[in-house]
Amino acid sequence: MAGKVFFSVSMSLDGFSAPESMEGLLATPEQRAQDPRLERWMAQWMELHAWILPQRFFRENLHLGEGGEEGRDNDIARETYERTGSSVMGKRMFDLGEHSWPAEAPFHTPVFVVTHQQRDPWERSGGTTFHFVNDGIHKALDQAREAAGDRDVRIAGGSETIVQYLNAGLVDEFSIVLAPVLFGAGTRLFDGVDASRVALVPVRSEPSSRVTHLTYTVHPR
Amino acid sequence: MAGKVFFSVSMSLDGFSAPESMEGLLATPEQRAQDPRLERWMAQWMELHAWILPQRFFRENLHLGEGGEEGRDNDIARETYERTGSSVMGKRMFDLGEHSWPAEAPFHTPVFVVTHQQRDPWERSGGTTFHFVNDGIHKALDQAREAAGDRDVRIAGGSETIVQYLNAGLVDEFSIVLAPVLFGAGTRLFDGVDASRVALVPVRSEPSSRVTHLTYTVHPR
Repeated sequence: MAGKVFFSVSMSLDGFSAPESMEGLLATPEQRAQDPRLERWMAQWMELHAWILPQRFFRENLHLGEGGEEGRDNDIARETYERTGSSVMGKRMFDLGEHSWPAEAPFHTPVFVVTHQQRDPWERSGGTTFHFVNDGIHKALDQAREAAGDRDVRIAGGSETIVQYLNAGLVDEFSIVLAPVLFGAGTRLFDGVDASRVALVPVRSEPSSRVTHLTYTVHPR
Repeated sequence: MAGKVFFSVSMSLDGFSAPESMEGLLATPEQRAQDPRLERWMAQWMELHAWILPQRFFRENLHLGEGGEEGRDNDIARETYERTGSSVMGKRMFDLGEHSWPAEAPFHTPVFVVTHQQRDPWERSGGTTFHFVNDGIHKALDQAREAAGDRDVRIAGGSETIVQYLNAGLVDEFSIVLAPVLFGAGTRLFDGVDASRVALVPVRSEPSSRVTHLTYTVHPR
C-alpha cells in the first residue's frame, strides 16, 4: 500500500525557511569571521534549527557524538525520519547538500533529484543513493513512491520544489516546525503558493519547550 | 502601576494579517457579487477570522445576537479585550474602521490614532473615544499608557504601525492567532521588521480546535 506524500520544514514566525542567500551554508568559519553578513546568516540558520541540533536522534544520525535531548522534539525528529521511505528534492538543495552533507548523507534511502542535468545515480555510504530525474515533478514522485514501498515520500525541499508539489495537488500533508524567531528577509517557504487551489485542515498543533509542531492535511479548493 | 504594551493579531500560516488591498472590507455585497477579486478578498478575510466570529464574546461585544461558542477561543478573545485599557492604531486602520465599525465601536476605551491629521477627539457611544495624535508613535504611546492606568496598551494595528512599535523596542509581548489558511499574497504582518534588533522568547503555544494561539515576549538583541 502506498504511503503519504509530505514535507516537514522549520519555519520562522514570519514565514522564512532559510535566511537570505543560501551561500552562507557553504562559507568557512574564516569567511564568516570576515563578513558580518555571513556571520548573521549562520546565526539565523542556527536559531531556526536550534530545536533539532541538541536532539539525540539528530546527533546519532549525523554521527555528532553520544547523548542528547530525548523529549518530544527528539521523538518527532525520529518519527519524521522513520516514516520516510524516499525523498524528492530540487536541484538547488542537492547542489548545496553535495557540498555540505557528510560522506554518509543523512537520508539512508533513495533520493530523487528533480533536475535538467543528466547524471548516473550517485551512491553514498549508509544507504543513500541520489537518482537524477529529468522529466518533471510527477515522474520524480512516481519513482519516489515506488522506492518508498509502504512508507511515505518526503518532499525534502527547497521551498520552490515544495510549492511546485503543493500547487500540483500532490502533497497529502505537511508539518511546520515554527521557530520563535523573526528573519525579516530570506527564502519564504510558501512563496508562489496558489492559495486559490490549496486548502488546509489542521491535524495537530503541539508545543514543545523550543518550538510549535504544526501538522495540516492538504485539500483542493 | 503601568501595564504592558502588546499586540494580538490573526495571521495566516504564510504570514499575512490581511488579504491584498483592504478595500474589500468596504465593498458592498452587490460589489462583491460582481467582482470575483472582492469576493475572494472577503472569503480570505472570513477564513482568517473564522476562529473568532462564532465566539460568544465577539457576538456580545458587537451586538450580533445571543449565544455563541464558549471554549478556550472565547476565553482568549475575552481576556484580550479585558486586559486592554487603551489602544493605539495607525491612520489607515482608523480610516477603514471609521467606515466599517458600528456606531458603538468595539473598543470601549480611549483609542489613540497616530496621524498627521489634526482633528478633535471623536466620542462614540459605549465609551470609545478616538484621540488624534500628531507627534509620533512615542507620544501616542505615552498618552495611551496614561489612559490605560494599570491595564495594558494594545497596539491594535495595522501591521505597519505594529512593526514601527516593534522596531522601536516598545512592545513587551504579543500574541499571534495562527489560522490554518494560506493567502499567497496580501499584507504581511512582519513586513519591515528589523530582525537584527528583535529577539523573541516563546511564552505560550496553545492549540484550539480552530487555530493555534502563540504568545512571545520581545527582547532587544
